Amino acid sequence: MSPESNPKLTVFPSTSSIDERGHLHIGGCDAVELAAIYGTPLYIFDEDAIRAKCREFKQEFGTLYPDTLVTYASKACSNRAIAQIMNEEGLGLDVVSGGELYVAESVKFPADRISFHGNNKSEIELRQALSCGIGRIMVDNLHELMLLDRIASEKGITQNITLRIAPGVDAHTHRHTTTGLLDSKFGFPLATGQAEEAVAKASSATHVNLVGLHFHLGSPVTETSPYEMAIDIMLKFARDMEQKYGFKLKEFVPGGGFATQYMVKEPVLPVAGYAAAITARIKKNVSELGLSMPKLIIEPGRAIIGQSAVALYTIGAIKPIPDIRTYVCVDGGMGDNIRPAIYDSAYEALIANKAGEPESTTVTIAGKYCESGDILVRDTTLAAAEAGDILAIPVNGAYAIPMSSNYNMVTRPAVIMVKDRTHRLIHKRETYEDLLRLDVI
Amino acid sequence: MSPESNPKLTVFPSTSSIDERGHLHIGGCDAVELAAIYGTPLYIFDEDAIRAKCREFKQEFGTLYPDTLVTYASKACSNRAIAQIMNEEGLGLDVVSGGELYVAESVKFPADRISFHGNNKSEIELRQALSCGIGRIMVDNLHELMLLDRIASEKGITQNITLRIAPGVDAHTHRHTTTGLLDSKFGFPLATGQAEEAVAKASSATHVNLVGLHFHLGSPVTETSPYEMAIDIMLKFARDMEQKYGFKLKEFVPGGGFATQYMVKEPVLPVAGYAAAITARIKKNVSELGLSMPKLIIEPGRAIIGQSAVALYTIGAIKPIPDIRTYVCVDGGMGDNIRPAIYDSAYEALIANKAGEPESTTVTIAGKYCESGDILVRDTTLAAAEAGDILAIPVNGAYAIPMSSNYNMVTRPAVIMVKDRTHRLIHKRETYEDLLRLDVI
Repeated sequence: MSPESNPKLTVFPSTSSIDERGHLHIGGCDAVELAAIYGTPLYIFDEDAIRAKCREFKQEFGTLYPDTLVTYASKACSNRAIAQIMNEEGLGLDVVSGGELYVAESVKFPADRISFHGNNKSEIELRQALSCGIGRIMVDNLHELMLLDRIASEKGITQNITLRIAPGVDAHTHRHTTTGLLDSKFGFPLATGQAEEAVAKASSATHVNLVGLHFHLGSPVTETSPYEMAIDIMLKFARDMEQKYGFKLKEFVPGGGFATQYMVKEPVLPVAGYAAAITARIKKNVSELGLSMPKLIIEPGRAIIGQSAVALYTIGAIKPIPDIRTYVCVDGGMGDNIRPAIYDSAYEALIANKAGEPESTTVTIAGKYCESGDILVRDTTLAAAEAGDILAIPVNGAYAIPMSSNYNMVTRPAVIMVKDRTHRLIHKRETYEDLLRLDVI
Repeated sequence: MSPESNPKLTVFPSTSSIDERGHLHIGGCDAVELAAIYGTPLYIFDEDAIRAKCREFKQEFGTLYPDTLVTYASKACSNRAIAQIMNEEGLGLDVVSGGELYVAESVKFPADRISFHGNNKSEIELRQALSCGIGRIMVDNLHELMLLDRIASEKGITQNITLRIAPGVDAHTHRHTTTGLLDSKFGFPLATGQAEEAVAKASSATHVNLVGLHFHLGSPVTETSPYEMAIDIMLKFARDMEQKYGFKLKEFVPGGGFATQYMVKEPVLPVAGYAAAITARIKKNVSELGLSMPKLIIEPGRAIIGQSAVALYTIGAIKPIPDIRTYVCVDGGMGDNIRPAIYDSAYEALIANKAGEPESTTVTIAGKYCESGDILVRDTTLAAAEAGDILAIPVNGAYAIPMSSNYNMVTRPAVIMVKDRTHRLIHKRETYEDLLRLDVI
């Protein structure tokens, strides 16, 4: 097997390669050296891979539908380095909490390109959003609509809002991450008349300006038909609301949920495929229904950041159970990546210092957390593993670090960014002192 | 309905009561006032409830089996205030990481009462343990045994160890939390001969002193028969190992996993029930097999701390979906308590400022996190909820705060301790500044 031919690189960041010693390189940096420098577990983000995905989304959607704003759903991974890249690439930013908005503000992210999501925004969060001049608030429910109208009134401003609608379309995702159904904590259900009631109330409210409609079907949505069905439903609804209430759809937001390839043998629809289907369906409906062309806002999170990062671990104990399986234990696990435990998420893995060697053993990769559910990868093929080897798990840019905990009082990993053979720390590893910093005795 | 008669108090801390205004009190403190003072989400631990459970375990096991050491499994919830209480109550402490050991050391917990668990302890963690003079290391695998023997040899000491054995008994718990099976990342499998190999190697190793055998079946184990089956298997194994290798069983550790009552209508076996079954079975085997009576070490975590804490949230948006369900949204969720999302855990809930009112509405309690799986309680009965009400969820002492994350960049809650009408902060609420403290740009 030649060093270059490891097919797992398909799901590693685009700059990844294998050198003549069989070491994995990312962004021109030797992953084995990075593990030695920064320690493990280590999360490595590839700046070129992030920027390339931003540009791919802008290109694919923008070519077909020029008035598109690609907004990065920062809940996929929020920190200042990433927010700054999104700003430099001209993307918008979705935030879902005061904390995510705080990150955006800390890098002076242009407020007019920020959207605020969430099913239960607090008064404090809404005040924070209005104070920074946020572009749009995605209003989820009547409580929020009334609260926002009152706060905007107190501040003497009129806030642009978009209503989040639950269109009742099943996107066939994991039950934890499907959001467009009628029975959802998110949005105004269309089928019950509550969406129309929201349009009526928003239209008559004095300090909000209803500019758009939003839906989000869940994540990942692996086919285009759920988007197409929902677009049909939503644009017809927009037309009805125009006829009844004079509502003009200026912004249309068919959400995110674009799939990311995790497994070599499970390719996903390319960005171009989503772009073609979504933009064509919007144009068709707009034309048939006699609407004006709205601005299109799309909200990729995982699809931008997911494949950009690789987690590195050091292998410790290896436990062969004859005729059953071999557990290869690493120095991280469900504390830094809870996705396998919570969503049964599957990953590829390779040994970063043996990336060119034949992968002829089937093993299960266990974390170090004191819980049987702490399994990172079940039944994967690896080169012959030994204690001290560096294990790399790709597609770790989204929802690993953001959901990481101090379970078992384990410190959270360092996070670095690589680009053009250079590497820089973007989030320091926690220390034991950090664990007790807020502890009071 | 009289204020005292809310049956949900069954699963609240033992000091809980409802006052004449219908306010929930814990440890003599008005929960509604505590929410106003500290903000929400807020985790309230009841010191008397913790101490009472410690004493119940010591009493029930100690009466039947005087040479018992009750050790608190600190992964259930680790902080200095709790570690100090365990020390004052004379318990031992189980740690599963260098971080948990650091907490123990920070309150000068007597090292001879500390046990170190884990399937992949690092060399650094083992050195830390040996440096503090830890009582016993629960050795999980051969890699660790050899590593420990080498480190102890370098340090010129002989370390007491206990071998963790996988006895192959199914405890019928959630697949994430069952640990005693043959196919487990934990321990030396008995059926494959690897347990015997470990005894042989430990017996001939020069710098470890094999004092005991350990098994842990999972959590919660709701019946006594799995313990009894495993005790039979393990003590027969101990006898065989004595005959073959001269191994003397001085400490016997049948783990933890004792159940905690979460739901009013789902009572669990009392501590006395576990104590009676486990101690009787050990005595029977010891007598029949001609063994000396070993020290008994039990490892309750959740069973000590689980019912001692209540989480408080503020209710915000309320979303009725006609003919389907009503979502009551709170200001916390899967970031502070991921158990419902990861284990399908069920909880009771009541409105702390309406604890005496009729609970005639059925609702689903949703968190504020941007994910459909962020549901804290499905289909529970509440008094009529309004925005601003304080929602209390009991049995939140174990595995909520320890697994909490900054998902959605939401700050983690404040934690307080109540006792005798006083309250004190034991862990400060995070701030937005804290979220970026380790961020580098």
